[in-house]
Amino acid sequence: MSLVIVGSLAFDTIETPETRKERIVGGSCAYAVLAASYFTDPKIVAVVGTDFPTDIIDLFQSRGVDTRGLKVEEGKTFHWEGRYGHDPNQRTTIKTELNVFQDFKPELLPEYRRASTVFLGNIDPDIQEYIRFQLDEPKLVAMDTINLWINTKREALLKVLKDVDMFFANDEEVKMLAGENNLITAGKKLMELGPSLMIIKKGEHGVLLLSEDFVFGAPAFPCENVVDPTGAGDSFGGGFLGYLDKVRSFDEKYLRRAAVYGSVMASFTIDEFGIEGLKSLTLDRIEQRFSDFNKLVSF
Amino acid sequence: MSLVIVGSLAFDTIETPETRKERIVGGSCAYAVLAASYFTDPKIVAVVGTDFPTDIIDLFQSRGVDTRGLKVEEGKTFHWEGRYGHDPNQRTTIKTELNVFQDFKPELLPEYRRASTVFLGNIDPDIQEYIRFQLDEPKLVAMDTINLWINTKREALLKVLKDVDMFFANDEEVKMLAGENNLITAGKKLMELGPSLMIIKKGEHGVLLLSEDFVFGAPAFPCENVVDPTGAGDSFGGGFLGYLDKVRSFDEKYLRRAAVYGSVMASFTIDEFGIEGLKSLTLDRIEQRFSDFNKLVSF
Repeated sequence: MSLVIVGSLAFDTIETPETRKERIVGGSCAYAVLAASYFTDPKIVAVVGTDFPTDIIDLFQSRGVDTRGLKVEEGKTFHWEGRYGHDPNQRTTIKTELNVFQDFKPELLPEYRRASTVFLGNIDPDIQEYIRFQLDEPKLVAMDTINLWINTKREALLKVLKDVDMFFANDEEVKMLAGENNLITAGKKLMELGPSLMIIKKGEHGVLLLSEDFVFGAPAFPCENVVDPTGAGDSFGGGFLGYLDKVRSFDEKYLRRAAVYGSVMASFTIDEFGIEGLKSLTLDRIEQRFSDFNKLVSF
Repeated sequence: MSLVIVGSLAFDTIETPETRKERIVGGSCAYAVLAASYFTDPKIVAVVGTDFPTDIIDLFQSRGVDTRGLKVEEGKTFHWEGRYGHDPNQRTTIKTELNVFQDFKPELLPEYRRASTVFLGNIDPDIQEYIRFQLDEPKLVAMDTINLWINTKREALLKVLKDVDMFFANDEEVKMLAGENNLITAGKKLMELGPSLMIIKKGEHGVLLLSEDFVFGAPAFPCENVVDPTGAGDSFGGGFLGYLDKVRSFDEKYLRRAAVYGSVMASFTIDEFGIEGLKSLTLDRIEQRFSDFNKLVSF
């Protein structure tokens, strides 16, 4: 099996009630690729400017990431600035400078086109569609999105949705896109539009999987010290798909476990600023938290 | 063992986006007592007016409830009117007519004073305190509350909290009372003020138990058709404590299961208007949903 992850690499300026961090490395792809790298060797598709630190590319490579799909373009890397309130679920975007990301329209390498699993991280749905149709009979295509695209590019988004197997979205996005207030009804409605598995991320309230055959629910790992919630959802997606790529199966049993491994990776991410929490984990710590998760929900 | 449940009996006028129901039977005690009655024979402490339907008292008795602590006073029963938005978590109180409930200050019967488990449902904390000190060495005292008392009778509430073993509250109430934004930190802070077990109800997001020895988390049972969310928390409390009274143990294993039985009872409540969903359940249906819960969270 092989896993291709498409998304953004960025500098993030993040303000929490306690701290401000200027231009630290982030972007959906950074979180997803690092989280996945503990399970498999993902291939990255992204673009950065010449100002992007080479030691991060070195870090990716040292973690087994195939970086041949990472383009370095003349110019500046995508920059996002956001602020969190006392409630870490309240996030305000202060500034978005797309820079080299503005013209991101990647041509996949032949080997990438033949990947068995592809994660279309949160980017413009037109670009997701463009990539989707370069793929050569993938076993599984997953997509993520944000409310920005639901509001501004609904039709394009629905077009991609038709051709993916799994849809990662948070509860508000699922309700908004389906036009339904009940989360389960909303999720089922979106399944009729394409994906056979809905992966509904609920932040501090955990995750819900909906398929035709089963429903799976898990709380989030209890965390007393949420340092920086940025990238939790992307880490979840990377952990989820990385684990599936490792076990080479999409059976129900593994989908349920993938959701727990995804939650584990997200819990490590929010423990520290930016990608710090994902830089130097060990398999032991991951397995320990997986086992703590088991204790959390056992009855 | 024996379980005493103190709370309100009421007429509720409930408006949802789809329907309006006038003066149906409700109140925290009605839900908690009916939910508990599937596990044990609870004793009720409440007050109603002469307008309260005798067939509901007959229903309680037919379900094994000891109604000797239920006072019928000259006058009208407590009446609450509320409205739910499209999001069932949005509830607005339109009207509160306390009526005979205004002077509720119960003297417990001797047999009630010796109960092993007492549930002080959501009522004025001064009354909770008044009842608490009539008890004769109970094994377990649990209390519930709502934000009204946190805002208006904080000191009285903290005084009761000091002398109870379990505190049922929803996530917003826990954060509000503790003055903390992180739910886990808030819960731990409240544990320092008295209770050894925090039972944090999160509505559609499930439940979290915090004790010194363990943390337990469970999602809510996925429900596509929330007809009326009124009484879900009270049914949870009744099911939780009813189950503990049945198994005669407060060991961790049973506390975890109690939380699932509580969630099961809440899920039956929201399936129908008022107490309808709790009137004629069977143990088979309860066990079936318990087992469905197990499937929901297994990985």
